[in-house]
Amino acid sequence: MAERFDRIWHNARLATLRADRPDLGEIEHGVIAARGGRIVYAGAQADFPADADAAERVDCEGRWITPGLVDCHTHLVYGGNRAHEFELRLKGASYEEIARAGGGIVSTVAATRKASEADLVASALPRLDALIGEGATTIEIKSGYGLDTATEMRQLAAARSLGRRRPVAVRTSFLGAHALPVEADGDKDRYIDLVCREMLPAVAKAGLADAVDAFMEGIAFSAAQTARVFETARELGLPVKLHADQLSNLGGAALAAKFSALSADHLEHTDEAGAAAMAKAGTVAVLLPGAFYFIRETQKPPVDAFRTHGVAMALATDCNPGSSPLTSLLLTMNMGATLFRMNVAECIAGVTREGARALGILSEAGTLEAGKWCDLAIWDIERPAELVYRIGFNPLHRRVWRGQ
Amino acid sequence: MAERFDRIWHNARLATLRADRPDLGEIEHGVIAARGGRIVYAGAQADFPADADAAERVDCEGRWITPGLVDCHTHLVYGGNRAHEFELRLKGASYEEIARAGGGIVSTVAATRKASEADLVASALPRLDALIGEGATTIEIKSGYGLDTATEMRQLAAARSLGRRRPVAVRTSFLGAHALPVEADGDKDRYIDLVCREMLPAVAKAGLADAVDAFMEGIAFSAAQTARVFETARELGLPVKLHADQLSNLGGAALAAKFSALSADHLEHTDEAGAAAMAKAGTVAVLLPGAFYFIRETQKPPVDAFRTHGVAMALATDCNPGSSPLTSLLLTMNMGATLFRMNVAECIAGVTREGARALGILSEAGTLEAGKWCDLAIWDIERPAELVYRIGFNPLHRRVWRGQ
Ligand SMILES: [Zn+2]
Ligand SMILES: [Zn+2]
Repeated sequence: MAERFDRIWHNARLATLRADRPDLGEIEHGVIAARGGRIVYAGAQADFPADADAAERVDCEGRWITPGLVDCHTHLVYGGNRAHEFELRLKGASYEEIARAGGGIVSTVAATRKASEADLVASALPRLDALIGEGATTIEIKSGYGLDTATEMRQLAAARSLGRRRPVAVRTSFLGAHALPVEADGDKDRYIDLVCREMLPAVAKAGLADAVDAFMEGIAFSAAQTARVFETARELGLPVKLHADQLSNLGGAALAAKFSALSADHLEHTDEAGAAAMAKAGTVAVLLPGAFYFIRETQKPPVDAFRTHGVAMALATDCNPGSSPLTSLLLTMNMGATLFRMNVAECIAGVTREGARALGILSEAGTLEAGKWCDLAIWDIERPAELVYRIGFNPLHRRVWRGQ
Repeated sequence: MAERFDRIWHNARLATLRADRPDLGEIEHGVIAARGGRIVYAGAQADFPADADAAERVDCEGRWITPGLVDCHTHLVYGGNRAHEFELRLKGASYEEIARAGGGIVSTVAATRKASEADLVASALPRLDALIGEGATTIEIKSGYGLDTATEMRQLAAARSLGRRRPVAVRTSFLGAHALPVEADGDKDRYIDLVCREMLPAVAKAGLADAVDAFMEGIAFSAAQTARVFETARELGLPVKLHADQLSNLGGAALAAKFSALSADHLEHTDEAGAAAMAKAGTVAVLLPGAFYFIRETQKPPVDAFRTHGVAMALATDCNPGSSPLTSLLLTMNMGATLFRMNVAECIAGVTREGARALGILSEAGTLEAGKWCDLAIWDIERPAELVYRIGFNPLHRRVWRGQ
């Protein structure tokens, strides 16, 4: 007797994103079969038994199926709202005036500290729903607006809670080393002590973080301070990632590579040597065109160097209230193409396969392959390029998470 | 006995956009009352009779209401799809290779000529629905991909048909002078003859156009050719608008002003004198940041000069397959702010009051004022700035068109 599947999607065109196939790994006449939330078969209709038994059969009417989208870099959970600061800036307000009006990251930290876990979940849900509404099935969420142990943990708990409220996989990153809190009074080393001795162990013990992130920059933390955070993460058995080389080249890419980071993110100022080091370490370049666009950056990340050295490139929203209030992976792809000149296949791989790689979950997600979670996005399009080409248009027909 | 209304929206915050009020003409505790599809009252709750009789009362729970959005410049109706051309360009294909692969405006003209009116309506509907889904209640649609009488008329008829298929006001512009068709064999003057002697009279007679547009540019038509089109429009009693100064300064703004055009659009290369002429003529500057973004233009329209001279500024999507495949007025506002440094009030006015002014329908739409059509957008936001600040997020709660 033939094996029984939970569900079969047939009459579909597949963009499998398999790394062993060229371009998007397209299959013109494809079938996906799932059981227990996982893909059992994703391939040509011709190689699939026509009489396969399934509880449900879905006729895709020739629609395209891609892997469910992965947003591998967000700051989705935070308190407050920075629309007013944006308004003041456009009116020509100075940084001082904005600070006096309660703007800047300080205001987000203050609002986040005041918010309960339920508040944080409630305010993040519409943002999460916007991402899900475009086919996202896995979303990374960072802490970093608490900057004290209790609030950082509350932010991460809120992120975990979001994953229970919606059919979506949430991956969390602890970003205690995001900025210096006001009460640290300028003493970065002492704050990093707190991060390494108190925050990170507490977060790890509670199982609240899947990875550890840091912001290495003149306005944030030095290479030495970042290395301390990464060493602590290593002792605790947590993988690392890094906000690197966004505003200047402090060697963030190389430091990330040295610690075998899952990813280095932003990278506008990364040089050739940084790209080479990342390639050797298998560190993914996570490019964030939304922030580049919103803060009107002019220095572009070295996409050609990443290509030459074979660095995998992911794309993510960087959704955050200060520098990228963006909740669309479709638009992120268009910005990757328009602003960074990534090609269509790179953009689509960037929000699927490479996003999964940047989160260390490529064995579970990011491509249409047997054994992985059955996370699908089914699109009303004639060709995959439309996902990248259109601006402010959502052709999602249906989203499937874990086979449902 | 008190007058009876069809519907009352109460417990609302209003951004009336009234020109006689500062900023957005905000009313913190507002009411809108409608009868026969028109606004009868839009103002303070305190000045409105508490016992007013209405068939329906809607509690807005403190939500913000703006005028329904106006997209005053689109090429929404066309045949074919240029996603593949976009894909080839990103792979580094030359113009020749793209032309050989069937790209460029020529391909859109060929596909539009092949399409029936029903085809044109069907392919435009998802784009129209995307705009409507963000609160648009009035949309301008141009012809210009037919370049022969029958197809230009079919495009305009399809646009009119869209207005019957959906609860939205469609305003049409005849843009026969958009590009030179292949069969004209390089003879622009002879093609303009055809536009003025055959196309425009036929379009006017059929009542298919609310205005006449042209594309004045080195790659399109000269000032003299544009003037001929405008003179013909004047004879036929149709108002004019102009694609002006997008890629170079040929004096398009001044020519538009000379003909008292409703609007001059694009205007990246307009100079101070052009702005002054527009101000004097009351010609609206329609800015199109989507095209600026998509073709990676670097020259910005002279927003400061428009402010100084008191030129009204509208914002529109320019939705078209070649240079702005954009179907979001929310994103258009964000681009107006981020790329052109327009402030929040200018951006919101740009897609409401000034959009209506650019279409010559300010007496009917574009603000919340008694006597106008009751076209509303009701938003889940804390302050209007959020409409401009967020990227790829749709906070529309409900849309009302003609009171329903
Ligand atoms: Zn970030
Ligand atoms: Zn146009």
